[in-house]
Amino acid sequence: MAPSNTSVTLVKHVPSGAPTLGDFKVESTNVPTKASLQDDQILVRTLYLSVDPYMRGRLTGAQDSYVEGFVPGKPLIGLGVGVIEASTSANYKEGDVVTGDQFKWESKFVSSTKGFTKIPASSGISPANYLGVLGMPSFTAYVGVVSLCKAKAGETILISAASGAVGQVAVQLAKARGLYVVGAAGSDDKVEFVKSLGADAAFNYKTCGDLSAAIKKAAPNGVDIYFDNVGGEFLDAALANMSNFGRIAGCGMISQYNATADSVYHIQNLIRIIPKRISIFGYIVSDYYAKPDYANFITEVSTMLKEGKITYKLDEVVGLENGPQGLLDLFEGKNFGKRVIKVSDAQQRL
Amino acid sequence: MAPSNTSVTLVKHVPSGAPTLGDFKVESTNVPTKASLQDDQILVRTLYLSVDPYMRGRLTGAQDSYVEGFVPGKPLIGLGVGVIEASTSANYKEGDVVTGDQFKWESKFVSSTKGFTKIPASSGISPANYLGVLGMPSFTAYVGVVSLCKAKAGETILISAASGAVGQVAVQLAKARGLYVVGAAGSDDKVEFVKSLGADAAFNYKTCGDLSAAIKKAAPNGVDIYFDNVGGEFLDAALANMSNFGRIAGCGMISQYNATADSVYHIQNLIRIIPKRISIFGYIVSDYYAKPDYANFITEVSTMLKEGKITYKLDEVVGLENGPQGLLDLFEGKNFGKRVIKVSDAQQRL
Repeated sequence: MAPSNTSVTLVKHVPSGAPTLGDFKVESTNVPTKASLQDDQILVRTLYLSVDPYMRGRLTGAQDSYVEGFVPGKPLIGLGVGVIEASTSANYKEGDVVTGDQFKWESKFVSSTKGFTKIPASSGISPANYLGVLGMPSFTAYVGVVSLCKAKAGETILISAASGAVGQVAVQLAKARGLYVVGAAGSDDKVEFVKSLGADAAFNYKTCGDLSAAIKKAAPNGVDIYFDNVGGEFLDAALANMSNFGRIAGCGMISQYNATADSVYHIQNLIRIIPKRISIFGYIVSDYYAKPDYANFITEVSTMLKEGKITYKLDEVVGLENGPQGLLDLFEGKNFGKRVIKVSDAQQRL
Repeated sequence: MAPSNTSVTLVKHVPSGAPTLGDFKVESTNVPTKASLQDDQILVRTLYLSVDPYMRGRLTGAQDSYVEGFVPGKPLIGLGVGVIEASTSANYKEGDVVTGDQFKWESKFVSSTKGFTKIPASSGISPANYLGVLGMPSFTAYVGVVSLCKAKAGETILISAASGAVGQVAVQLAKARGLYVVGAAGSDDKVEFVKSLGADAAFNYKTCGDLSAAIKKAAPNGVDIYFDNVGGEFLDAALANMSNFGRIAGCGMISQYNATADSVYHIQNLIRIIPKRISIFGYIVSDYYAKPDYANFITEVSTMLKEGKITYKLDEVVGLENGPQGLLDLFEGKNFGKRVIKVSDAQQRL
């Protein structure tokens, strides 16, 4: 039997509400061959695929989103790490390890070189980290905490989804800068994990009762910076606890991604921004790769990583055929750390 | 009969809901005399008092407000312009015209010199203007449009309450910078006035029907800057119409000041700030007087005024005894332009 290629395709768009397994299809297709490459293309064997909240928007079929939507009948596309198996591009050769945002959800695939970057062979860092501590969610934390909110020693920062892909780095970047760090997470295990990262206080937002009171208890002097991963009710409770000249960075509102017109949460504390002089920044990390912030991030976090000063929890789902469930879990908060799909083995360290 | 002094005092705090005339008392008191001055005090004859939305907060009795609350049994205090009738301070002499935020709502009053500034005798500008085009509401417009939102030629700005004390200056500052200016106001007269200031489009928010559709019609290319004076439903509709990288400056939410816990408007479009990368700035103008922005404002607007390049509508209520009604009107949008109370005649131009 010839080896087959696994492929995860979208069956139909899901404009609102929760997606289900039936919205995806796991198929066996032919393995792409070197002979099929056209000019300036690469044949990539996928090592890891990234599963991220922003992918909800790509499922909707909406045309006005900031990223291209997924196309029914075609494989999902996203961030990944892989090995070049064949190349007709002068810039890539067999054995190169690459990362980028044009990874198809397939065991192996052919692509143009656009959207790929080579990982330096000398980096001494295992490939999955390029979807983790040095990846997009981690840079998202950096942009929110450092670039936008300009975190300063002695301030108090509140971080929602603090055990997640973005939150765990936000906690550590803030702690390294001398802030008082308060984290919220959705299970007692996650809360313990957040404390183990160095948070000064952490609480379980699902069992704490009144959210605003829980924030007040954990941050009795008020919140200077709120790093918002969730939106909705938590954002409202944070608004009620902000200090003068507080800053809020919003990189995602996962609590609202599956909301319908009837269930979307309505914010009532926005009026607080005036007397408290609060700034709120909505942002998308891809706008920042071309700015000096990105090089600063790579330098800072690579150094922390090599010196053992930053840890990062990966939540690895093994097997591309488990990819759809791995994605659905994320919308229900079932992941614990940054979720990746392990597609094949590197059999190597870079 | 000895001349008497009119004084407007607060009867009791109004924590929420709409204040009424009965919450204020107009009294005749003794005229303060020069002989009653202690060291470093001034006796001021009030010319004009300013009536401003932020005064709602001073009526509540809340301790956590950013300005001192009014005290039951004592006169209201606010912005004003007046003439020094007597002084024991080396810095002020009889005849000096002063402005500041420590004006008591009295025909004449004695005060320390803190919170007062002399108006240059050579300015050639009539005193009421220091509560108007060169006053606090005008500087509020400058900070929002210029300092925070960094308005650039070719962008579209939406201004709510565009005929009001702040809005009319925002319209003109934006127009002078080459923006496409869309104003909203609460009557057809006000809409005409906003157009006469140079706005490219204007609409009556009370009669336009669906607010979001009205904004879309007036600003078909989307809103780059929303200058928010009102909050609530209008802010929500503006959020739905923002362009990528839009900025919102919020200096007041008058639609919500008299809201109770049950009636406060709940914002549903805040989630738009992420995909559209929107920044929202809550601010209080008093934070900006010590910054270079203030000198820049005075220079720019004085020049525009002398060159006839800026107009400003004052809404003058005559007589201190009409002060309470003048304030209550403001909360119902009955003013047309920047409201001031004329207390006495300057009988002079500066």
